Amino acid sequence: MIGIAVIGYGYWGPNLVRNIAEISGARLVSVCDLKMERLASVKARYPAVDITDDFDEVLRDPRVDAIAIATPVSAHFSLAMKAMMAGKHVFVEKPMASTAEEARRMVDEAARRRLVLAVDHTFIHTGAVRKMREIVENGLGEMYYYDSVRVNLGLFQHDVSVIWDLAVHDLSIMDYVLPEKPVAVSATGMSHVMGEPENIAYLTLFFESKLIAHIHVNWLAPVKVRRTLIGGSSKMIVYDDLEPSEKIKVYDKGITLNGNPQKNGEKVYQMLVGYRTGDMYAPQLDMTEALGRELRQFIDCVESSTQPIADGHAGLRVVRILEAATQSLAQRGRVVELEQARRIA
Amino acid sequence: MIGIAVIGYGYWGPNLVRNIAEISGARLVSVCDLKMERLASVKARYPAVDITDDFDEVLRDPRVDAIAIATPVSAHFSLAMKAMMAGKHVFVEKPMASTAEEARRMVDEAARRRLVLAVDHTFIHTGAVRKMREIVENGLGEMYYYDSVRVNLGLFQHDVSVIWDLAVHDLSIMDYVLPEKPVAVSATGMSHVMGEPENIAYLTLFFESKLIAHIHVNWLAPVKVRRTLIGGSSKMIVYDDLEPSEKIKVYDKGITLNGNPQKNGEKVYQMLVGYRTGDMYAPQLDMTEALGRELRQFIDCVESSTQPIADGHAGLRVVRILEAATQSLAQRGRVVELEQARRIA
Amino acid sequence: MIGIAVIGYGYWGPNLVRNIAEISGARLVSVCDLKMERLASVKARYPAVDITDDFDEVLRDPRVDAIAIATPVSAHFSLAMKAMMAGKHVFVEKPMASTAEEARRMVDEAARRRLVLAVDHTFIHTGAVRKMREIVENGLGEMYYYDSVRVNLGLFQHDVSVIWDLAVHDLSIMDYVLPEKPVAVSATGMSHVMGEPENIAYLTLFFESKLIAHIHVNWLAPVKVRRTLIGGSSKMIVYDDLEPSEKIKVYDKGITLNGNPQKNGEKVYQMLVGYRTGDMYAPQLDMTEALGRELRQFIDCVESSTQPIADGHAGLRVVRILEAATQSLAQRGRVVELEQARRIA
Amino acid sequence: MIGIAVIGYGYWGPNLVRNIAEISGARLVSVCDLKMERLASVKARYPAVDITDDFDEVLRDPRVDAIAIATPVSAHFSLAMKAMMAGKHVFVEKPMASTAEEARRMVDEAARRRLVLAVDHTFIHTGAVRKMREIVENGLGEMYYYDSVRVNLGLFQHDVSVIWDLAVHDLSIMDYVLPEKPVAVSATGMSHVMGEPENIAYLTLFFESKLIAHIHVNWLAPVKVRRTLIGGSSKMIVYDDLEPSEKIKVYDKGITLNGNPQKNGEKVYQMLVGYRTGDMYAPQLDMTEALGRELRQFIDCVESSTQPIADGHAGLRVVRILEAATQSLAQRGRVVELEQARRIA
Repeated sequence: MIGIAVIGYGYWGPNLVRNIAEISGARLVSVCDLKMERLASVKARYPAVDITDDFDEVLRDPRVDAIAIATPVSAHFSLAMKAMMAGKHVFVEKPMASTAEEARRMVDEAARRRLVLAVDHTFIHTGAVRKMREIVENGLGEMYYYDSVRVNLGLFQHDVSVIWDLAVHDLSIMDYVLPEKPVAVSATGMSHVMGEPENIAYLTLFFESKLIAHIHVNWLAPVKVRRTLIGGSSKMIVYDDLEPSEKIKVYDKGITLNGNPQKNGEKVYQMLVGYRTGDMYAPQLDMTEALGRELRQFIDCVESSTQPIADGHAGLRVVRILEAATQSLAQRGRVVELEQARRIA
Repeated sequence: MIGIAVIGYGYWGPNLVRNIAEISGARLVSVCDLKMERLASVKARYPAVDITDDFDEVLRDPRVDAIAIATPVSAHFSLAMKAMMAGKHVFVEKPMASTAEEARRMVDEAARRRLVLAVDHTFIHTGAVRKMREIVENGLGEMYYYDSVRVNLGLFQHDVSVIWDLAVHDLSIMDYVLPEKPVAVSATGMSHVMGEPENIAYLTLFFESKLIAHIHVNWLAPVKVRRTLIGGSSKMIVYDDLEPSEKIKVYDKGITLNGNPQKNGEKVYQMLVGYRTGDMYAPQLDMTEALGRELRQFIDCVESSTQPIADGHAGLRVVRILEAATQSLAQRGRVVELEQARRIA
Repeated sequence: MIGIAVIGYGYWGPNLVRNIAEISGARLVSVCDLKMERLASVKARYPAVDITDDFDEVLRDPRVDAIAIATPVSAHFSLAMKAMMAGKHVFVEKPMASTAEEARRMVDEAARRRLVLAVDHTFIHTGAVRKMREIVENGLGEMYYYDSVRVNLGLFQHDVSVIWDLAVHDLSIMDYVLPEKPVAVSATGMSHVMGEPENIAYLTLFFESKLIAHIHVNWLAPVKVRRTLIGGSSKMIVYDDLEPSEKIKVYDKGITLNGNPQKNGEKVYQMLVGYRTGDMYAPQLDMTEALGRELRQFIDCVESSTQPIADGHAGLRVVRILEAATQSLAQRGRVVELEQARRIA
Repeated sequence: MIGIAVIGYGYWGPNLVRNIAEISGARLVSVCDLKMERLASVKARYPAVDITDDFDEVLRDPRVDAIAIATPVSAHFSLAMKAMMAGKHVFVEKPMASTAEEARRMVDEAARRRLVLAVDHTFIHTGAVRKMREIVENGLGEMYYYDSVRVNLGLFQHDVSVIWDLAVHDLSIMDYVLPEKPVAVSATGMSHVMGEPENIAYLTLFFESKLIAHIHVNWLAPVKVRRTLIGGSSKMIVYDDLEPSEKIKVYDKGITLNGNPQKNGEKVYQMLVGYRTGDMYAPQLDMTEALGRELRQFIDCVESSTQPIADGHAGLRVVRILEAATQSLAQRGRVVELEQARRIA
């Protein structure tokens, strides 16, 4: 039985509390938030669970094996480091940290102490994204592009830009689904409200191959869109997260290339690009709640001393791109290389 | 009665021929194409119209007042220049020329000879785009963004990239609808077929204000998308060209900003961003064929010695962006300034 | 402060409990179900609330002013009658009773004892349906038709047909939205599983005017549809309950009739039918939870001794149609008159 | 080479003329219409084709082997009978005739003279409907229902009701796709314009098995819908003719029935109804123009003295249902048996 404490009871914390309280193999020991008034409802619903505004108390509690952190991003690093120094396993919200340097130190600390460090890349535990990875692994032919749109009239985050708030989802999905890691990023965007971070942004990600990825995020869109296109030479995927049931559609479409360009020259080659369209299918998806699956995996990792799919390295890769994209955005799209992140991963 | 000759009878030429043949106030004099076999059907259908593969013959023909050019882009400049030197008014397909330098010389030539030079920016003559301009003119509040997606499994153009083939539509619509002209562009993209131009591209356009524009074009998408979002502080527009009837939707949505940031400091200011959602409406649109309206306007301009909405300057502005985007794309998104185009416009 | 007991803690009961527990002006006194094991979670969450499997105990409890009944339909009548005989106000799930005769006796009992009898026609308290009624009241011209489709792969109800399970929603919405009551019904349908009630059904409702209504319900559809069309001579409404935000669309469309048919004869008259299409708009809707609004209204009615919108008469009108439709269905669409229901209403 | 004359050059005639003019193995001999002015454009486009307003002239013309009739329905019978008496094969618009008696006599005449009698059930020659038949033939398990909606703001036909104008499409598709023929019909509907035929109608069709079919047609709908659901115990189909490419979707969904109802009694049986949902797929469809395929088949039939898929019997079956539905509609849904039609088919 793994004892878990939840730190932070704002937007996401209640989801963690509910799932941990119901999962087998774990025991929700305590919930901690600086605002004690938020915790009254926890006590009412789960009388056996401790509530506190003192993080150190949680650290000292020998019943607590693991700590789940759901605070604002700026606090992730110091809380996670203290937790690991106290010998606790860590499950931390995404993005994992405010800078790649912080994320790197968290990864090192977890490795040194042989602790589980899991990053809450929730989407990769959905049936839709897992199916998408399976389809990509089975092959789309040559990989061409990954294009995602995630826009709506959303709440402004006052401490981080729309990239850290929304693109982080796409980057974590891409990190899980694609067979390659990006090597450079170019980002553009704009802040439309004085004193606020960017509320619209466009990221292009380059890879060593001809694969190209693009992410469009926007807090000020009149309609909600959650759509990803993945294009390969022989198959293409449309992932629409707003579809109630057919979230993943696989198209047997593409181009066919015939001829020998070296020999025939460009003119002839060009005439040999053909188009192919076949059936579409929408696979049945596992509709289990992603967060439940994810916590299940975290608990199993703690018990078996293994690392989860979204480990600290995955979290670091995502933060490295967020950081680079923020740099690029400040320079109107100047490309920023991601070498360091690649080296570590 | 204006006499018109059509040059080029490939993909678009037949539409010009059909519309000119039916329009009042104009007379279709001749149709010219290097491949005479293409013209047999013209003769069968319009016995009174001359067909020829000799452009000089058209230039010498005194019955021809104006020449409509629907050839590949690379021939636009020389054909239009010869036509104007022969005193003919010109209606030329988009993009107007292969380079901004060519476009600039065409503009100069038309001005010097007081000839009408019209560029076939067809979309700006549709009911949907005209309504969109009207709504923008009536005010969306502060202009925030213009975001367009134009993707499908389309025919590769072997001589020009997807930017020159598809983004040209968005740029001509933007040029017509937005109250400002862009000052810089950052573009990324990729060619997935060796020896072929880029088949996927992303353009970000910067303005002097906080307005930002973005265009996504792709020849290898599994689904067809033709959707533009225009965001303002008080209203937003969704233009979906694939909707059979409700192509334009206007959302009474936005954010409200209260407080005095200078005085209260950033913290307080942030709490004063509010959200507002009201009714949506889809205005009834004029469904007249755009090309017919456009040719009507061209003929009126010739008769009254005035310039059309999409004149050579508009065509040049679009080509200038295409050219700059192509430069930026080759450098993975490095921003390219558009000063020269601004100066001329 | 009105004391309320909830009877039946199966599918819908938990929603009643949650809403009553949170509403001001009411006190959740007790929850009763024949299966005590279902009630454990109630006690855990609301320690101050009594749980019991003895309905008589509830009836005797002087703290209980009103009883909310969420049991299977077959028990509604006897429970509601006992409750009223004990002087309790009643809030009962839809359909109100198994037969029109039962419903009529419930109405009489409530009238005799001056008790509030509310039927839980939840949908009429949604922002969408209330807006729809408002639009209809403001006028669609002459009313032409009301057409509703409510299909999906749904759970078979083993005790009632799809008419009693799904069409009851449409009938209660129609009863609230339309200015007229139906006078006759023709229904067809089929049971595809031996021993089970009809799983697909089609109802046509006739009115004294030229208004016609039709309802299509189906438990075995591959896709979920919740769409109602309301047609008038000058405006038409589409109500799509699956749309996340634009549930109600109002079309300024219709036909125009000119000429004098008496004088001109049929031939001439026919040429004078014209078509008119204008703007569409989707009004902003109140997104408050319907059940909360409805219980608020019930409590207000108890306090002020008034009757709610969906009172016993409304419930009876709906049951009368369900009963008549069931008769018609058994005779492959033979029309059944609804005179009695009209007389009472 | 089969010589063909087209009779009637109104709405549909021009499509016949264009297709016949372009098809191999046929020769368009003449086009006949009572209004000679309509035929001027035929002469302009096809100088070698005769135009006339004299049907007898066509009948006497030895170059004419077959006659395609595209006049108003009321003239189909007399024109087709005269044509057959003159030894001409016949291709007649749908519905084939104004009454079942007329249709029957046409069938008899064709049989007696060994002439080809084809009815223009155009939809059954589309890729979508042919694929749908193929899927049904391969098995959907036990057939449950066929449900079709065909509504829009359409032109009033002043001589026939919406059933004869729109439901005729659904009936001809059903006749082709389903393995069974209906045995009875119940129809309801309404005319909302004085002096005009019914503009909205609902048809339920009964079969000897548990299959049930329903058709909803409406000339006064604010939105255009063309959607058919076909449900079976193991698979279900959605056919949406307005989808640009994925017109047919096949759902691997249904219910599973376990247990032995005779033995276990109703209660136990009911608990054994299970639900099953699997993948969906949208097969690639042949996008060839239906009318071209259909005329190709007609010409082949004339050459080989065989009967087409949509022969006179198919046309008669459809007219028989239209007639019975019209009777039922006049009696507010009273069921009308279709025995005679069954006997003939």
